[in-house]
Amino acid sequence: MKLIPTILCGGAGSRLWPVSRELHPKPFIRLADGQSLLQKAWLRGAILPDVAEMLTVTNRELLFKTEDEYRAVSVISGNRTNHFILEPFGRNTAPAIAAAALHVAESYGEDACMLVLAADHLIADQPAFAHAVKQATQLALQGKLVTFGIKPDAPETGYGYIEADIDSHLTKTGGYPVLRFVEKPTLEKAEEYLASGRYLWNSGMFCFQAGSMLREMEQHCPSILEATRACIAQSRIAEGKGFSQLDLDAATFELVPDDSIDYAVMEKSSNVAVVPCCIGWSDIGSWTALGDLAAPDAQGNRIEGEVILHDVSNCYIQSKQRIVGAVGVKDLVIIDTPDAVLIADRSRAQDVKYLYSRLKADGHEAHRLHSTVHRPWGTYTVLESGTHFKIKRIEVKPGASLSLQMHHHRSEHWIVVSGMARVVNGEHELFVNTNESTYIPAGHKHRLENPGLLTLVMIEVQSGEYLGEDDIVRFEDIYGRTQK
Amino acid sequence: MKLIPTILCGGAGSRLWPVSRELHPKPFIRLADGQSLLQKAWLRGAILPDVAEMLTVTNRELLFKTEDEYRAVSVISGNRTNHFILEPFGRNTAPAIAAAALHVAESYGEDACMLVLAADHLIADQPAFAHAVKQATQLALQGKLVTFGIKPDAPETGYGYIEADIDSHLTKTGGYPVLRFVEKPTLEKAEEYLASGRYLWNSGMFCFQAGSMLREMEQHCPSILEATRACIAQSRIAEGKGFSQLDLDAATFELVPDDSIDYAVMEKSSNVAVVPCCIGWSDIGSWTALGDLAAPDAQGNRIEGEVILHDVSNCYIQSKQRIVGAVGVKDLVIIDTPDAVLIADRSRAQDVKYLYSRLKADGHEAHRLHSTVHRPWGTYTVLESGTHFKIKRIEVKPGASLSLQMHHHRSEHWIVVSGMARVVNGEHELFVNTNESTYIPAGHKHRLENPGLLTLVMIEVQSGEYLGEDDIVRFEDIYGRTQK
Repeated sequence: MKLIPTILCGGAGSRLWPVSRELHPKPFIRLADGQSLLQKAWLRGAILPDVAEMLTVTNRELLFKTEDEYRAVSVISGNRTNHFILEPFGRNTAPAIAAAALHVAESYGEDACMLVLAADHLIADQPAFAHAVKQATQLALQGKLVTFGIKPDAPETGYGYIEADIDSHLTKTGGYPVLRFVEKPTLEKAEEYLASGRYLWNSGMFCFQAGSMLREMEQHCPSILEATRACIAQSRIAEGKGFSQLDLDAATFELVPDDSIDYAVMEKSSNVAVVPCCIGWSDIGSWTALGDLAAPDAQGNRIEGEVILHDVSNCYIQSKQRIVGAVGVKDLVIIDTPDAVLIADRSRAQDVKYLYSRLKADGHEAHRLHSTVHRPWGTYTVLESGTHFKIKRIEVKPGASLSLQMHHHRSEHWIVVSGMARVVNGEHELFVNTNESTYIPAGHKHRLENPGLLTLVMIEVQSGEYLGEDDIVRFEDIYGRTQK
Repeated sequence: MKLIPTILCGGAGSRLWPVSRELHPKPFIRLADGQSLLQKAWLRGAILPDVAEMLTVTNRELLFKTEDEYRAVSVISGNRTNHFILEPFGRNTAPAIAAAALHVAESYGEDACMLVLAADHLIADQPAFAHAVKQATQLALQGKLVTFGIKPDAPETGYGYIEADIDSHLTKTGGYPVLRFVEKPTLEKAEEYLASGRYLWNSGMFCFQAGSMLREMEQHCPSILEATRACIAQSRIAEGKGFSQLDLDAATFELVPDDSIDYAVMEKSSNVAVVPCCIGWSDIGSWTALGDLAAPDAQGNRIEGEVILHDVSNCYIQSKQRIVGAVGVKDLVIIDTPDAVLIADRSRAQDVKYLYSRLKADGHEAHRLHSTVHRPWGTYTVLESGTHFKIKRIEVKPGASLSLQMHHHRSEHWIVVSGMARVVNGEHELFVNTNESTYIPAGHKHRLENPGLLTLVMIEVQSGEYLGEDDIVRFEDIYGRTQK
């Protein structure tokens, strides 16, 4: 048996603003133990038996961050081959799963099992999860499309439900036919479902043989399958050491209908099974859910960061850099980031999405980017912007290199504060060591590279009449960005 | 008649943390109109008739900031001579007023009238204030110690009260003998006082002839008067263009008993009068009082800064740099500063002082300094601190100069981003223009000066094993700091 854990990594996570942003979505949120939700999802799959490769469907903007995340935890699982499918834009889950199934069938055969995982859920009980996967693969090998149904412990109105035919065991070890999928219910309905013992929460995780899915798609959503197949035929594939990536062609991907796998396949197929499970699952749907992961103090406060409190109770406070003072408040969520702070009533944590949508509608940068921006070669953080100057802290990964570039309107002072830089500056090439500096006049071709084994940290002071990120001419770029 | 408005400028303003800090106390808080409370206090006095000089009692740490504040508004009143009395440490109001009265008697004679003003109160109705001062000076010229009593409009328990002998008019235009001073009362007592019509709030403002005060001190607190006189005899006086300053000797000032003018003189003297007044007075005792100065929107929110709100009401939000998002909250005070953010329930705004005390007890820098620090020559702002590096934005006022100095453990890269610098760097003297840089190795004597007419803005990147502010050897300093 070959198993291909398939991680769908995208989405905004608008309910976790200001930590989540369009280009730093929910999977990248880091928990108190230092791991991101994405790393946890990857490890969850990677440490299972029989894994042939790790497959991730994401987009180009998130690829480099995703690779960084995986690299940091790959030592835990032993190295796995990573394959990436890059969507030029989001088309919901059905096209993503179609592309993934086509890739798996091609690479590992139609019998290979796919395990579709969300990149931004939490599963606390890994042994129970591994056991559920084992049950699911047994059903998948019988040709079923298998869903994972979470046993409800409360009448939740925020999830979809799956009605199981609990009188018909599919195997000795568990698993039932699915009678129907139900949309998020009213409270009354949810209480009814909970009492009946027949309903499970739809976790959005699936297990099936690639061939089973392709056959069901042929039957229930042939237009999605055919359009995806046509797109892949037009797409570029790149291979590297321990990874490969399929870069979906934008023009043909645009022709793929936008639909969810639930609507397009699951709700229509008569071949769906559910494995009921108790695996400590949470979709981390709001700050309240995330806060609840931290241990409360005697006043019920959950704190990550430096705080000073007077008569404060039942609050969740997260602040990485600054001190948060609070007086006489309770039941609040307080989230501090370098450029935005959120204060919300606990019970209204879901509504944070409205702030995100408004910021997006207003074109406000705070919906899209953090002050620290991830690039293929590392990160930059804008420390301050003034009239005619901007100061950045630039961190370059060992061995990484920025593009050979030129700016028309700004000159740059570079001061190395940690590590060693190799710099192309006009006609010259030089090494700039810690506590040394160099000056790049406007119009000079230049390149910054970290030839060392430690992270290079550099302060860049830009001067000029125009300091927009779009004043850049790229001549050579190892990340393929010269075509942009 | 000679009038000497006398501003007592000190105190922490712990209830207005995080905007107020030990070295940026309440008088320096800037209101939405751009003026600080201190500037308003100075103008309040400076635009009165018959002003001989403006006298300020403050300390050395606050002197340069105070001068900057006065300079910025002196055009409004026409220039006034400023005299400063600098206390080496706080000794409450009685020694401050003793020193001020001794200075006024010496400079302008015992008959000169002093008008003691707090540096951190707000008086909205200047004509009514000027009228009250006129009434007060008439009584002062009769030898009275005159207090200003605010007509209460609510049973406030946060103020001291003055009982007036309302059956004995002292003049035709107003003013009564004071029967007694009362400490902050219980609510029951306060309601009684309000109903009686005989009680006024003690505003902490006074008017008296210098000689009257000195005679009363001789009688009621001779030890304070004599110790202050002895201290002045040991103290340095400095004179400059349009200002003079008396720098009280620390060793002898330490011998002056610590007491308030109310306890030491006012409550003991039988020679005290009160002028009742309605002048739009507020002591700005909390964030609620400060917030109430801003106009509310339809939801009762008072906003200074960039916010994004969803179902938020009756909140005061102040944020100069970052965006504040809020969801489903009401009756909060939210104050954002570069290194600290406060969230308090409106009704508990007074208790912010407990946060301040705890930060102070813990030795946390956030009680003492902002990330922007005022120096005699301008300001510096720490943009970022890392291991072995620190980045500052340094602004130098036109014509100002930092000391000739040297650091043992750090080298400095200076990049001018606005204006022009004259730099001493070891044996060399050079001009560094906008978008140019220079490098000061550890151990090099150096000096930074702004020879131009515009503010010099410079980015300093420090590198070294130790980056504490105390690694400095000062060789020459126009602000007299080489002796430290």
